[in-house]
Amino acid sequence: MSTHFADRLAAAVAVSDSRVCIGLDPRPDLLPPVCLQNKNIVVAAVEFCKGIIDATAEFAACFKPQSAYFEALAPTGLTALWDVIAYARSSGVPIILDCKRNDIGSTASAYASACFGRHHQGAVTATDAVTVNPYLGSDGVEPFLSVADDIGAGVFVLVKTSNPSSGELQDLQTEDGYLYECVARLVDDWGSIEKRVGECGYSSVGAVVGATYPEQLAQLRELMPRAVLLVPGYGAQGGTARDVAGAFDGDGFGAVVNSSRGILYAYRENGLEYKSAAAEAAQHMRDAINSVLR
Amino acid sequence: MSTHFADRLAAAVAVSDSRVCIGLDPRPDLLPPVCLQNKNIVVAAVEFCKGIIDATAEFAACFKPQSAYFEALAPTGLTALWDVIAYARSSGVPIILDCKRNDIGSTASAYASACFGRHHQGAVTATDAVTVNPYLGSDGVEPFLSVADDIGAGVFVLVKTSNPSSGELQDLQTEDGYLYECVARLVDDWGSIEKRVGECGYSSVGAVVGATYPEQLAQLRELMPRAVLLVPGYGAQGGTARDVAGAFDGDGFGAVVNSSRGILYAYRENGLEYKSAAAEAAQHMRDAINSVLR
Repeated sequence: MSTHFADRLAAAVAVSDSRVCIGLDPRPDLLPPVCLQNKNIVVAAVEFCKGIIDATAEFAACFKPQSAYFEALAPTGLTALWDVIAYARSSGVPIILDCKRNDIGSTASAYASACFGRHHQGAVTATDAVTVNPYLGSDGVEPFLSVADDIGAGVFVLVKTSNPSSGELQDLQTEDGYLYECVARLVDDWGSIEKRVGECGYSSVGAVVGATYPEQLAQLRELMPRAVLLVPGYGAQGGTARDVAGAFDGDGFGAVVNSSRGILYAYRENGLEYKSAAAEAAQHMRDAINSVLR
Repeated sequence: MSTHFADRLAAAVAVSDSRVCIGLDPRPDLLPPVCLQNKNIVVAAVEFCKGIIDATAEFAACFKPQSAYFEALAPTGLTALWDVIAYARSSGVPIILDCKRNDIGSTASAYASACFGRHHQGAVTATDAVTVNPYLGSDGVEPFLSVADDIGAGVFVLVKTSNPSSGELQDLQTEDGYLYECVARLVDDWGSIEKRVGECGYSSVGAVVGATYPEQLAQLRELMPRAVLLVPGYGAQGGTARDVAGAFDGDGFGAVVNSSRGILYAYRENGLEYKSAAAEAAQHMRDAINSVLR
């Protein structure tokens, strides 16, 4: 298997014929009763995530555990997160840890060690990629890129987020275009270094661009030709298959589209057992996105 | 004791006659041999931080544990972090958890629960304040403010960070001034709501502004008259007492200045036992800052 993240992700897309990123957000208030019964919430959340992984791996381009939901469970939440990551790894599907970390210098290096699974002690596995926030500039991002380079992993930088107020700062007009365009140019620069571009033509430096802003999504696709786009905001947040079509290239790669609630908690809508419901929802989303590819 | 964060911090500054924030960054490569010997690195880090807390509490306005260094130790690092936070709390000194979290909607709410110590299960104590990154705009910050309002805690928003490349994005010129000024106006808006302003006149919504940019520090002091400034970059990063003078009001409040390495690892410079070295360094920094107050 290629040691380059973008090539691993491209291979996973080809094998599954899926551009679906399944977000693993274990929310105590939404977990199915079968997982909760008489169990510690941390145990229940891990059981739930493993069930989702079993049920949906064949329809998934990647899994995206959300650190926040694990951290919120208990002070031991990160141990549960790494348990889930190790399990997901055994499925062979790439793993993007969504943690939006950011800091400077040696502190960013510490975060990079932590989120790529290179802890000082007790690391058991690795993530394939992580998400980071660019507000601190290059020297806040470089420590993540450096670890990623060492282990053939990827980094997704927040560029244009999916939330209603993302424009408050990201859409500010600067001397060089909108702020999100300035960030996009940095992402393109970081990702254009030869060693960071895989055989598939995409870089290990990707970008987070929301499905809820389809015009900017198409524009950012052009501005960052080498960046794999991680596209949140599909489904529960309002993004549709048509909205994300502009994220893909003519070969049906170049992006993965995330859904969390719409897959994880599909059982609450359709009355099926949670794993069957999630599998059905993931398959449906896969097919919906494939139907809009050029 | 006041239930308002800014009032608690003002009281701590008055009692200690100190504006020093002591950063708790347990770095495996810098820990003193006495803490390391034959011990698990997580145990060693906790022992070290508790020793620092014992030695420096009398010279500290607040403690600022840095989540990254705990997370990097092991998957159990956050359990160690909360052990240290509980210990720091028993000293009576306010605690700012430096985690620079950011996300949207329910995910930001999950982070807010986690970093203020309101875990779904197993929370044992609380932090007095946390740091957040503003790149996602108001709806990425509001969930943190909401929890802070509920428990009388504070939120420090990154405005102008201390690192060399902080200007790449933060100093971009927009239609409404530099980006950091736009963020500062948001901070001022968020913090001006009546319930967020304490008896001391300062708000529970503060701002992170680096000591390494003294001109911007003085300017931002004016732009955010109600915001307590958390000022990193002193000492090891190059900021001096003179550089931070502009952060304070005429009563010697309005800011706390962080030092981590320069206090924690002073033993490596002066050969003293680590606790004595840290106490001496903290006292020295307290006196240096007090000497430049207006």
